[in-house]
Amino acid sequence: MSPDDAGRVRRAPTSGPTFDTCFTPELLPLYDLRGRVAVVVDVLRATSSIVTALAQDVTHLVPVSEVAECRALAAEGYLTAAERDGRQAEGVDLGNSPFGYLDGAVPVRGRAVAITTTNGTRALHLSAAADAVLVGAFLNLGAVAARLRQLNQDVVVVCAGWKGKFCLEDTLFAGALAQRLADAFDPSASDATLAALDLWHAARPDVAGYLLKSSHVRRLNSLEAHKDMAFCVREDEYDLVPVFRAGKIEVL
Amino acid sequence: MSPDDAGRVRRAPTSGPTFDTCFTPELLPLYDLRGRVAVVVDVLRATSSIVTALAQDVTHLVPVSEVAECRALAAEGYLTAAERDGRQAEGVDLGNSPFGYLDGAVPVRGRAVAITTTNGTRALHLSAAADAVLVGAFLNLGAVAARLRQLNQDVVVVCAGWKGKFCLEDTLFAGALAQRLADAFDPSASDATLAALDLWHAARPDVAGYLLKSSHVRRLNSLEAHKDMAFCVREDEYDLVPVFRAGKIEVL
Repeated sequence: MSPDDAGRVRRAPTSGPTFDTCFTPELLPLYDLRGRVAVVVDVLRATSSIVTALAQDVTHLVPVSEVAECRALAAEGYLTAAERDGRQAEGVDLGNSPFGYLDGAVPVRGRAVAITTTNGTRALHLSAAADAVLVGAFLNLGAVAARLRQLNQDVVVVCAGWKGKFCLEDTLFAGALAQRLADAFDPSASDATLAALDLWHAARPDVAGYLLKSSHVRRLNSLEAHKDMAFCVREDEYDLVPVFRAGKIEVL
Repeated sequence: MSPDDAGRVRRAPTSGPTFDTCFTPELLPLYDLRGRVAVVVDVLRATSSIVTALAQDVTHLVPVSEVAECRALAAEGYLTAAERDGRQAEGVDLGNSPFGYLDGAVPVRGRAVAITTTNGTRALHLSAAADAVLVGAFLNLGAVAARLRQLNQDVVVVCAGWKGKFCLEDTLFAGALAQRLADAFDPSASDATLAALDLWHAARPDVAGYLLKSSHVRRLNSLEAHKDMAFCVREDEYDLVPVFRAGKIEVL
């Protein structure tokens, strides 16, 4: 399969692993993740922050469900990162912005981080039935694509969504990843992946501009949110693939 | 708001009722339908068949969950229509093709029909909390749009999907309807509607051709299915709006 001049997928490969997309964790019960690789994505901003954290030599991250669990891990030496409804929770070291790991205000190198976010943490835990759970973002898009080629198994992108609902930014990531793998993986049995590919095609000329209209970015309407968003849609900033297993996210 | 030359929505109205889209009935628990109008759509083929049936002077339809319930209503004088996994069920009068109401093999004028389908029936029953439940299809797109303008309430399009998952054809309907109402209804708080609008924009030059790649149409790959699909994407064939209430679908 090859993209045509406009970047569209022209033809599905006749064989090869399948590429499916689950638009929100609420729909995961309909997907059988066993024997498949899950790629969990929460572009704004959990998985972008996780990728950035590991690129800044955070040793590993532990995703937890509640802010209280997060704070409890501080006693064990963890840095704490927590977001609720788009804002940093009280009494923790970091919010959910990738710049928290970059701006130096909190030294992160060599530290472990306990993290909880509205949507991303939940998507990670609900994906644990997969053979492998990778953490994806635009920031490590190429690295995830390369790993999936190596693994050569059926893929399900698990979009974190927004409070259970469909969201544009995670869907664009699914489309971008499917496009990168269009010569080797077959999206044709998945309407969700086909839609993601078309939305990616529509957004691609100006992803940040496209997402400015999304309900999530409008909800987070602020200078800081726009700065985060512009960073989170950069492709291939970091060449690493975080893996979630046994409760920890780390680069293996 | 007005569409630009390419048919895209340029700007959301600053006020006006909202236009939301629920991609599958599985996600309905996340939507509060009270005070809203639900438009249930199952383009391939339940709601297209329902619209066609009423246009052929079927008096009303009763959607039921099980084929056995459907057959039981035959004793009360109902015609029976049942589909499972894309095929006509055994021991019923009609399948799920709109041509069943058009080809004359089974006289339908003046009859009532008990109908059960894989996805559409479920979507109707799960939408009952809405102030009004309209039945939509491309075949009555303009009539539904006109009714929504009259009602001037927040709208949720409920896509029947495919066994709980996202499907392209129902999403295209949501996009087409949002486009028709773009001057009066506000989609900006709904990423699902924004995505539907963009997918509609991508598909619009050749909707039937676009849907040939969808997993559902591929699943139903046959001459009959393609004939049904070509019919089901015709816009404004019938000027009527079926309403579901008190267990019955009828034109009020």
